[in-house]
Amino acid sequence: MLPRIMLCGRIVWAHQDVKELFNGIAEVIPMNSPNRADFLAGFKPGGKYEGTVGIYRHNTSADSIGVFDKEIIAALVPQVKWIAHNGAGYDQIDVLECKAKGIYVSNTPGAVDDATATTALYLLIACLRHFSYGERSLRELKWKKPISAGATHDLTGRTLAILGLGGIGLRLAYLVHAFPMRVIYYSRHRNDDAPEWCEYVDSMEELLAQADVLSVHVPLRKETEHLVGEKEIRAMKKGSIIVNTARGKVIDEEAMIRALEDGHLSSVGLDVYADEPSVNPRLLDFPQNALLPHMGTENQDSQRKMEVRALTNLRDFLIQGKGNDIVPEMKSKL
Amino acid sequence: MLPRIMLCGRIVWAHQDVKELFNGIAEVIPMNSPNRADFLAGFKPGGKYEGTVGIYRHNTSADSIGVFDKEIIAALVPQVKWIAHNGAGYDQIDVLECKAKGIYVSNTPGAVDDATATTALYLLIACLRHFSYGERSLRELKWKKPISAGATHDLTGRTLAILGLGGIGLRLAYLVHAFPMRVIYYSRHRNDDAPEWCEYVDSMEELLAQADVLSVHVPLRKETEHLVGEKEIRAMKKGSIIVNTARGKVIDEEAMIRALEDGHLSSVGLDVYADEPSVNPRLLDFPQNALLPHMGTENQDSQRKMEVRALTNLRDFLIQGKGNDIVPEMKSKL
Repeated sequence: MLPRIMLCGRIVWAHQDVKELFNGIAEVIPMNSPNRADFLAGFKPGGKYEGTVGIYRHNTSADSIGVFDKEIIAALVPQVKWIAHNGAGYDQIDVLECKAKGIYVSNTPGAVDDATATTALYLLIACLRHFSYGERSLRELKWKKPISAGATHDLTGRTLAILGLGGIGLRLAYLVHAFPMRVIYYSRHRNDDAPEWCEYVDSMEELLAQADVLSVHVPLRKETEHLVGEKEIRAMKKGSIIVNTARGKVIDEEAMIRALEDGHLSSVGLDVYADEPSVNPRLLDFPQNALLPHMGTENQDSQRKMEVRALTNLRDFLIQGKGNDIVPEMKSKL
Repeated sequence: MLPRIMLCGRIVWAHQDVKELFNGIAEVIPMNSPNRADFLAGFKPGGKYEGTVGIYRHNTSADSIGVFDKEIIAALVPQVKWIAHNGAGYDQIDVLECKAKGIYVSNTPGAVDDATATTALYLLIACLRHFSYGERSLRELKWKKPISAGATHDLTGRTLAILGLGGIGLRLAYLVHAFPMRVIYYSRHRNDDAPEWCEYVDSMEELLAQADVLSVHVPLRKETEHLVGEKEIRAMKKGSIIVNTARGKVIDEEAMIRALEDGHLSSVGLDVYADEPSVNPRLLDFPQNALLPHMGTENQDSQRKMEVRALTNLRDFLIQGKGNDIVPEMKSKL
């Protein structure tokens, strides 16, 4: 009997095509539980998910069964050995618990860089030029009456400060270099792939002090929660802009809103929020804010790329015993 | 007595600073006519504008005195010798009439390239990714419910077709090359400044057939009115996108709306309209359209650049008898 792999959450590929990909290697089954209890029961002896060794996971599965916390992970033991998450951010999976229980977790780095960096670029333009504001003004039949050119800027020559220069941050650096903006970055480590014009600064303080626009590209971990807090926001110049396409909780949202209210920040461009899909209504009070409903990777080309990468990780695991893209927290274990 | 120059329409520079620039060269006077009759009277012998040899002109002056048509131009003769228009597009000035009457017209090429190309890039991203739609969805508290990732695309690898490769089109080419998009263009003449990857196609038909996105960058002249009409739009692939940051009348707006209605075009990104500031309300029926209220150069950095360039043209005329940036229609006369 073939081992089983489970498709857990949204997948754009036709089920039939996925079956082809795993033909002779694994049986492909859907996760069809309407709630967590049903899911947990499915992994019990004789349950509908018995024999599942690998899981393709998309965040949409949380809508029915919740995030992959200790309870879910306990149910997967001892059968499941690999969770191939579709996405760069895997904060919905308790990876340390997975590590403790001998389950590997992979994500899809690289595949999301293009789409997410494009999202950050869009928000950056929308905030600097008040374009999102202008679009709403037009659709309210006010033409450009509420817009003040004096409050807006070209990108060219401004300083973009990138917090966390991984794949997405570096991709954004290249996109804005076309203008060019001046690009500086701060990361835990200097990125050896960074080109000469992408300048490493030694400290968070230095990064914030020079930023016209701060763009956040760090994953959400315990250490990065509220990494950009009251103190950091106040270290930025008056009138500066924050763009966030990473995770909402990396920024102290309350502190950010206070800074908008007293004019310290001129606007924010957000694709992510502290409590999605809820959005703090105070953010909507500022017409110059550009606010997207977490669409960073929402397009068919990138989603296909991400699915291929996640499924390839599963396939490699089944054939070779190990996939690529194991998340950093797990690497020490290998 | 010094010759006089008139500031006609919006200027961001402080009046005092402009006086400094022309110190000892010309007296700087404002255009303060509430209507056309008052303006025309001002140029009569003993009128308040007597002695004006040069005019700095911004399109906002049309709000009170109308465009520079035959009637206005007749009033300027024989005193005014130079009209330094602030903007790339000078379709509000009857340049052939000016030429016939011995008045030179200059515009501000180059100064607008950055801001306008950025606007086109923003509209292009907004249309391909449905970001403008997403922003409105969020502000209507619907999160991303109405958005379908399957209807959206990455920029990377798509084909951008540029109609008219002047300064703005070329600047846009460089911005999207960072992704990269494939870039093709058609112009009356091949642009010698175009890099190798920016491919000239021999005909409008060829350009349209290959376009995923068509971006329009030709000035409005008699020959370019409705240059993109029913036939041209239907020559594009089903599901393609049109971006226009040039002038509304270059496109047959009715034909474009019909193509949106029957799904031939998937969306349009517009900064300009056939009858500004009126916007055809049928354009608003399509939530995936990105519609800006003619903000192409609306930001303080570019406006400063444009004003400096327009005023420099006037100053050079006063000192050397000739400014730079004379519009192409006039060059044959020099």
